[in-house]
Amino acid sequence: MDKETARIEAFSDGVFAVAITLLVLEIKVPAISDTALATALVRQWTSYFAFVISFAFIGIMWMNHHRLFNHIRRSDDTLLVLNLLLLLGVTVVPFSNAVLASYLGTRDQRFAALLYNGTYFVIAILFNILWRYSASNHRLLAKDADKAAVDKLTKQYAFGPALYLACFVLAWISVPASLFLNTILAIFFALPPRIAAKVTGTHA
Amino acid sequence: MDKETARIEAFSDGVFAVAITLLVLEIKVPAISDTALATALVRQWTSYFAFVISFAFIGIMWMNHHRLFNHIRRSDDTLLVLNLLLLLGVTVVPFSNAVLASYLGTRDQRFAALLYNGTYFVIAILFNILWRYSASNHRLLAKDADKAAVDKLTKQYAFGPALYLACFVLAWISVPASLFLNTILAIFFALPPRIAAKVTGTHA
Amino acid sequence: MDKETARIEAFSDGVFAVAITLLVLEIKVPAISDTALATALVRQWTSYFAFVISFAFIGIMWMNHHRLFNHIRRSDDTLLVLNLLLLLGVTVVPFSNAVLASYLGTRDQRFAALLYNGTYFVIAILFNILWRYSASNHRLLAKDADKAAVDKLTKQYAFGPALYLACFVLAWISVPASLFLNTILAIFFALPPRIAAKVTGTHA
Amino acid sequence: MDKETARIEAFSDGVFAVAITLLVLEIKVPAISDTALATALVRQWTSYFAFVISFAFIGIMWMNHHRLFNHIRRSDDTLLVLNLLLLLGVTVVPFSNAVLASYLGTRDQRFAALLYNGTYFVIAILFNILWRYSASNHRLLAKDADKAAVDKLTKQYAFGPALYLACFVLAWISVPASLFLNTILAIFFALPPRIAAKVTGTHA
Repeated sequence: MDKETARIEAFSDGVFAVAITLLVLEIKVPAISDTALATALVRQWTSYFAFVISFAFIGIMWMNHHRLFNHIRRSDDTLLVLNLLLLLGVTVVPFSNAVLASYLGTRDQRFAALLYNGTYFVIAILFNILWRYSASNHRLLAKDADKAAVDKLTKQYAFGPALYLACFVLAWISVPASLFLNTILAIFFALPPRIAAKVTGTHA
Repeated sequence: MDKETARIEAFSDGVFAVAITLLVLEIKVPAISDTALATALVRQWTSYFAFVISFAFIGIMWMNHHRLFNHIRRSDDTLLVLNLLLLLGVTVVPFSNAVLASYLGTRDQRFAALLYNGTYFVIAILFNILWRYSASNHRLLAKDADKAAVDKLTKQYAFGPALYLACFVLAWISVPASLFLNTILAIFFALPPRIAAKVTGTHA
Repeated sequence: MDKETARIEAFSDGVFAVAITLLVLEIKVPAISDTALATALVRQWTSYFAFVISFAFIGIMWMNHHRLFNHIRRSDDTLLVLNLLLLLGVTVVPFSNAVLASYLGTRDQRFAALLYNGTYFVIAILFNILWRYSASNHRLLAKDADKAAVDKLTKQYAFGPALYLACFVLAWISVPASLFLNTILAIFFALPPRIAAKVTGTHA
Repeated sequence: MDKETARIEAFSDGVFAVAITLLVLEIKVPAISDTALATALVRQWTSYFAFVISFAFIGIMWMNHHRLFNHIRRSDDTLLVLNLLLLLGVTVVPFSNAVLASYLGTRDQRFAALLYNGTYFVIAILFNILWRYSASNHRLLAKDADKAAVDKLTKQYAFGPALYLACFVLAWISVPASLFLNTILAIFFALPPRIAAKVTGTHA
């Protein structure tokens, strides 16, 4: 049985690794022109911004996937399909990222930000479905899975869709505010849990 | 011996993962123009349609590959070559997908749909060859392989080419009908087996 | 120790898988025009020819890499570097392939064929260096490695550079003859060893 | 616990493998024109130069990553984040490489060389942070980790940022000198340690 989740993890790692690395293809080399290279590079700051945020979010998703599959020990057809749906979402990120990088600063930036955060919102929901399917009645977990740890994970994952929904709604009001919240989220998720707990006043 | 199929699986997973993620490169970011971004994105709906169907089919192929190699335990040179032929087919999918996405809605859409379903038809045949080679006389299976399960798998896989051939033939009559059948197949394969059995009135 | 070669193999599998899948990006979707899609697709037959041959050769290299690392059990810094040099060669194949696909049928096709076979010639030499380094005095092999099998492999690998050199030299005389020999080699390597032995009158 | 670092290594291998293979996409096939193919290929020598140096540096980074994770046996959230930061750096290399390949020989080549070496400088610092975090008080090392070997590694890694900083500073004075030093470094790192020690008169 362990062998089965091993191959799901290997395939998922492959998709995550390709998707996160393809992001860099969106950062274009400026065409040689009268403009100095440094100036031309600075002008496409939206590409770097989108790249770093998207890299952080795909990285965070990989960490979450990794964390879930530390608990998920068995596999069935439904898990395979739910995992493929999740990877479908991850694979779309380079596209949403490219749209954001291209349209930030244009009159269509709101729609680009909505698409961008909408993608993450859908992925966050798919994460919840995958986890709840696996964890309900400990369907696919180890027999000796720690009930408290499982329940805590279930609670934590419920926050994901809410946070991305906040970014999505905020994009209707103010695109910069929405992207600022994206940035805060990326930094926050990257903080070691102990520091993050101090910042929010919660306990791990 | 187990080590040998482990590396075949790892390499195959890599090819599947790269091929399924490359699909997204076909979805182009609309050039900045007078058209609103939302309108421009809606206009390229053929790209999303082809992307989702192709993602589903490559995902299903990966699941099938995974399932076969749960039974295949030993390796030989013929298996390596048959597996490479299968991967050759999988690698062509991003191209067939790109042709379909570009030509759907043009006067050449019939040929694009034939090429698209022809690719899957060939892959389905290659799956059958690989499996029949491995399973005949239990050549490469575990010594204690369950004969009933093996025979069932052989029967199930025989359906694949027939289904894709149906899509292929249907494309001569009506391209929309053919693509509709593709969609139905993708959804059907993704359904948990118990629900799928209820829909068709068969028993697992 | 086993862990070390495991990671070399995993990384190499990744490079092989990405390189073999990137080949498909060279097959371009014809621009929508007055020409029928079928005609436009037939016209770029050089892309399909190059794709299939290159896929076969990268696949064969992967099989050979796989075979060598069935014998190589230990690792050292030199092996890591030799393996990286080999992967450098493999990574160049998509470029040589793209040049061949673009220039076949033009007045520069000879140079394209020389570059193409030159790439494989260099890779074949790198394979020999890696293997001879690992096998001499059984430096990195299992302690109980079968001396006869090792010597046989050493002899077999010595043929690789000679065969690709023949293709290279033949390209000076006749490009079609050189590519015909490439095709024969790809088919021959893909034949199950027993049939291949019959064709050549040798014994495995 | 071992399982955890296994998946970090698998994901990292994937990113390294994709990044190192994507480098080849920067080498463009010359457009068919009146210029002979050979001449056109020679003219884009900067692409090959950048490709080989970048391949060597990503390869060296992979070897270093591999070496560190021979010692790192446990994982925590901080390691996951530090490793992702490191991979972010690695993923940027294909972009820095493309800028260097395009701008070498233009009046902007200094900035391109600064960007190129700046990328490696940052990655070298991230390597040090990751290692020092893991090794301080043997936080994530095996319990029986060899203190002398660990201290030696810590000393060796401290050199990395200094060397890349030297390339960076040298680029202000002379771009060719800076790239020459890059080349020397790539060759030096690739030399078997015994020969490297002889060249520098140090002992392993």
